[in-house]
Amino acid sequence: METTIVLAALKLVGYGLSTIGPGVGIGIACYGCCVATARQPELQGRLFTNFIIGAALAEALGLIGFVLTFIV
Amino acid sequence: METTIVLAALKLVGYGLSTIGPGVGIGIACYGCCVATARQPELQGRLFTNFIIGAALAEALGLIGFVLTFIV
Amino acid sequence: METTIVLAALKLVGYGLSTIGPGVGIGIACYGCCVATARQPELQGRLFTNFIIGAALAEALGLIGFVLTFIV
Repeated sequence: METTIVLAALKLVGYGLSTIGPGVGIGIACYGCCVATARQPELQGRLFTNFIIGAALAEALGLIGFVLTFIV
Repeated sequence: METTIVLAALKLVGYGLSTIGPGVGIGIACYGCCVATARQPELQGRLFTNFIIGAALAEALGLIGFVLTFIV
Repeated sequence: METTIVLAALKLVGYGLSTIGPGVGIGIACYGCCVATARQPELQGRLFTNFIIGAALAEALGLIGFVLTFIV
């Protein structure tokens, strides 16, 4: 019982670690999208596509960590 | 049994650590792609290819960590 | 038996740590390649070669960490 509780806690630590990178990365991607859109407003659609693809790739890493807390 | 549970939890910690680098890296790659696209819109295809290759290389490191949680 | 299981878990933690640097490094390399291509489009082939070599060198460090989880 005791170790099960420790397991639950360590899982959450693992998930927390798995969000550090994606969290920062999505922010940097969004920053680049905003700055680039301001420089070339007519490309806003293309730049937004780039940003969404990059954010999705990074977000996936965090969401996998979320799913892993249930299946590990 | 007890140590098996600890193993499962530490696996998730390992996965969490393995996403920090790729998460940040994908964001930086996306940032570069957006800024460069704004500077030279006519190169958007080439720049997007560079971004996807870089993001795929980084993402692979995170996904290997995901796979390792099952085979280690 | 007990220590073997703990070893397996710590291996994954080690792999996770080994991807932090490569993940960020590949992103920075991709960023530099994109920005430089936008500045000198006629050098895009050469810049892409540089990026791939840098990314491969960084990726190798992560993959060595992956291989080490099996042979250690």
